[in-house]
Amino acid sequence: MNRRLFTFVGGSTGRWHVTRVKTIVGEPISAAAKVDVLEGRAMPNPDTSWAFSGITSNDRYVSLDEKQHLALNQAGVGRPEAVCAALVLIRKSAAWWILSQTERRGILEDQSKHIAIGMEYLPAIARRLHHCHDLGENEPFDFLTWFEYSPTYAADFNQLVSRLRATEEWKYVDREIDIRLVREPQ
Amino acid sequence: MNRRLFTFVGGSTGRWHVTRVKTIVGEPISAAAKVDVLEGRAMPNPDTSWAFSGITSNDRYVSLDEKQHLALNQAGVGRPEAVCAALVLIRKSAAWWILSQTERRGILEDQSKHIAIGMEYLPAIARRLHHCHDLGENEPFDFLTWFEYSPTYAADFNQLVSRLRATEEWKYVDREIDIRLVREPQ
Repeated sequence: MNRRLFTFVGGSTGRWHVTRVKTIVGEPISAAAKVDVLEGRAMPNPDTSWAFSGITSNDRYVSLDEKQHLALNQAGVGRPEAVCAALVLIRKSAAWWILSQTERRGILEDQSKHIAIGMEYLPAIARRLHHCHDLGENEPFDFLTWFEYSPTYAADFNQLVSRLRATEEWKYVDREIDIRLVREPQ
Repeated sequence: MNRRLFTFVGGSTGRWHVTRVKTIVGEPISAAAKVDVLEGRAMPNPDTSWAFSGITSNDRYVSLDEKQHLALNQAGVGRPEAVCAALVLIRKSAAWWILSQTERRGILEDQSKHIAIGMEYLPAIARRLHHCHDLGENEPFDFLTWFEYSPTYAADFNQLVSRLRATEEWKYVDREIDIRLVREPQ
């Protein structure tokens, strides 16, 4: 069985080196020099600045056509050349969560083209989405999105997140932290 | 802030008396004479036969029209006259979770009329849905549905669950336990 629950741990040790942390909106997080991506729940230790858990899950918005397109085109995490990563921590407002499914799909895709924009960057930019909204009542974020890409696509990644942040959907984002990372080539 | 996480605890103590437990499909659960509905996570004690946690969440399938109709017509839990309850524990198969959102809505509503059938029993039968699929990796069920109604509507409730079990959607249910309960009037 594939693991679904992952914990991102920031502290003084870890495989990924933090190159930049930017608080886009809302409360910042503590500083961390390195990040590890662990399976399951992680126990905090004295070196841990923060630990955020999330669970991969079923798709919430994609149509069958979109799902098939994604399955054919997206890359998995862990490619040897993908030594750049981004961890984007996102919380959406109560105004988002109270919407009906139809309204949320309308904002996310019909208005904001979230799925279509993401597809333009496949397979260069790999993405793994972790949900936290239903992991517990007191989670600090609703989503942890992990991206991996080779240095060649660093500018494309910047463009991708800029385009998403300009959308109608992003008006519902009330906390966002953008963490960029690199690792030694394998 | 409203609590979202609830734990249903079966054992020798509790406010609700178990009148019947029926394993509809899949593995049964241990016997319990009584059930308590607790807020948050509950600590197991020697009297506990089982404890299942779930979290209320955003709607996954309703359209705006359906959401507005539900808001106008549904009753909350805890009505004094609603001394009958049912706790229905459900797991859906991997074949369900791998479908796209469009396919799942198609099966749930266009083919199975799950939302429309439920609406016929409002406000008599109150319903609170708790999600477990994204609460962790090893949850025994995906949904815990709690229903409350007065004895007058006991036959209607039986009809409601029979109709749902005959749908296309229920072909994706691979574990289901139906627990019926009563409590002393307030």
